[in-house]
Amino acid sequence: LPAEQEFDQRISAVMGIDMGATHTRISLLDRNKKTLDLSKIKTAEIATSDIFPNFKRLIDEKIKQHCLKLTAMVIGLPVTISKDRMKVLSTSNLQIDTQLFSELLVLLQQEFSCQVVFERDVNLQMAYDVHHNGVEDKIVLGCYLGTGFGFSIWLGEGIYTGAHGVAGELGHIPYGNEAEICVCGNPGCLETVVSGMNLRRYYEQKPQGYPLDLFFSQPENQPFIDSFLREGAKAVATTINLFDPDTVIIGGGVVDMKDFPYQYFLELIWVHCRKPLPAEQVHFIKAASSSFNGAIGAALQALKISR
Amino acid sequence: LPAEQEFDQRISAVMGIDMGATHTRISLLDRNKKTLDLSKIKTAEIATSDIFPNFKRLIDEKIKQHCLKLTAMVIGLPVTISKDRMKVLSTSNLQIDTQLFSELLVLLQQEFSCQVVFERDVNLQMAYDVHHNGVEDKIVLGCYLGTGFGFSIWLGEGIYTGAHGVAGELGHIPYGNEAEICVCGNPGCLETVVSGMNLRRYYEQKPQGYPLDLFFSQPENQPFIDSFLREGAKAVATTINLFDPDTVIIGGGVVDMKDFPYQYFLELIWVHCRKPLPAEQVHFIKAASSSFNGAIGAALQALKISR
Repeated sequence: LPAEQEFDQRISAVMGIDMGATHTRISLLDRNKKTLDLSKIKTAEIATSDIFPNFKRLIDEKIKQHCLKLTAMVIGLPVTISKDRMKVLSTSNLQIDTQLFSELLVLLQQEFSCQVVFERDVNLQMAYDVHHNGVEDKIVLGCYLGTGFGFSIWLGEGIYTGAHGVAGELGHIPYGNEAEICVCGNPGCLETVVSGMNLRRYYEQKPQGYPLDLFFSQPENQPFIDSFLREGAKAVATTINLFDPDTVIIGGGVVDMKDFPYQYFLELIWVHCRKPLPAEQVHFIKAASSSFNGAIGAALQALKISR
Repeated sequence: LPAEQEFDQRISAVMGIDMGATHTRISLLDRNKKTLDLSKIKTAEIATSDIFPNFKRLIDEKIKQHCLKLTAMVIGLPVTISKDRMKVLSTSNLQIDTQLFSELLVLLQQEFSCQVVFERDVNLQMAYDVHHNGVEDKIVLGCYLGTGFGFSIWLGEGIYTGAHGVAGELGHIPYGNEAEICVCGNPGCLETVVSGMNLRRYYEQKPQGYPLDLFFSQPENQPFIDSFLREGAKAVATTINLFDPDTVIIGGGVVDMKDFPYQYFLELIWVHCRKPLPAEQVHFIKAASSSFNGAIGAALQALKISR
């Protein structure tokens, strides 16, 4: 028998790639959502002008190692993505040309004969969290307070991306410090106040006798913490009053810090939720924190498009 | 032949009722969206403890006059409505018991053998505006600055109502005057600053030599107007950055006032829209102002459920 008529013994699998500013994490899932492989490399080693050969080598290795047939691939990036999820619109958080990414997508599709799309990284964290918490059929908001203030909208069937693919820019609603121009160019975005960036800036104003990780454990920081959380809570309550979700997932690097006052933060949010509804019925979940969640979320989204 | 076997010569029609604090407006449309009748009565005459007999008499008259068979009815109210659109949750803007409304719905369904549902009034204004502007297949936000700050979300197929039926409470996002308790009970809702109520309160602080309708024509009001519009623009930009709509409809009693600086308001909104998207592609439409739009919108929604 010619080779192509032999029984295909390769395992069907999907690949999720979460490319952050520092690390790129990769997840492989089979059709039953079983994890086949988790790995990470430094983004600087892969996101070079040789990005396609780098990716190809890495993926070929995985395919050979596990005897896989890839059916779909989702690549998460901390950037804005076109509505069709085929183009990168801006890469302010990555030092690489947008055009290289668009070429990468076409080359990967040709090389591996599978669907490849981009997705905003925070939406992949959300895809993981709704799956992990069994709320895929609900209206869910994801509030991820990390370096910025990431936000994602899940409307029962999947991620809501808006008319132009850029929905959910909570970090850039105009309720920050009006005297400050945000990295996005607009004045007074929320992230000028409520973000890990602003937390770090406050911490670095003077030499401190403790590491940043212990910021929430220092009593002398309480006035800053109160104001920081109050403004963050107002932003979360805003999304609750507008979207009326079943569930709100709260997570991100700042929320994961030691002694972050999670219950107090929920109380501050509740103050500004419309009564009686949605205040009395909205449900809060703290996001599980693992650096691989975004990559697994990417693979879960890949499973959706590979059907 | 017995009467029920005769050919039914009655015209199939739907009824839209828009019950405001002062007037109740009624629209009748045939299956081709042709207006058969528009009328209004004082709400105080119909929203009494005899609300069902009052409605029955009024509807019977219309049916007889036009020889109609009603297939569906939508009743718009300035209140919060249950997710299934069968119950009124709170009637702070109408002096009538919520229980009476729930009974009314059941009695009307039985009496006229047709579907009857409630809807939030602002969603019916939106139903009219998306139809009138031919954007039913788009993602559309409706911002109606009137007595309060009404807001409605249209996601391509219809009104987005959220998990508990109360989505779109822009007037109650916590970006108003924090020192003030809103009529809803929460501190610092947007409507404490950006609403016709607040405009009127400012106007009534001292005797004025001009009617409220000419508020925007008085040069001495410019500082208040600037601050009022800036805060309103920030709220609208917030919804644009979160929902990423194709189209934003701007309307309401305040926007309809003489010399309201509509173009300036759009410029203020644009300042805070995320660049390049959605800022460069979002499209603004000024709502047509007619007091019957809500009632016609109610009838258009009734056509949707009567299919």
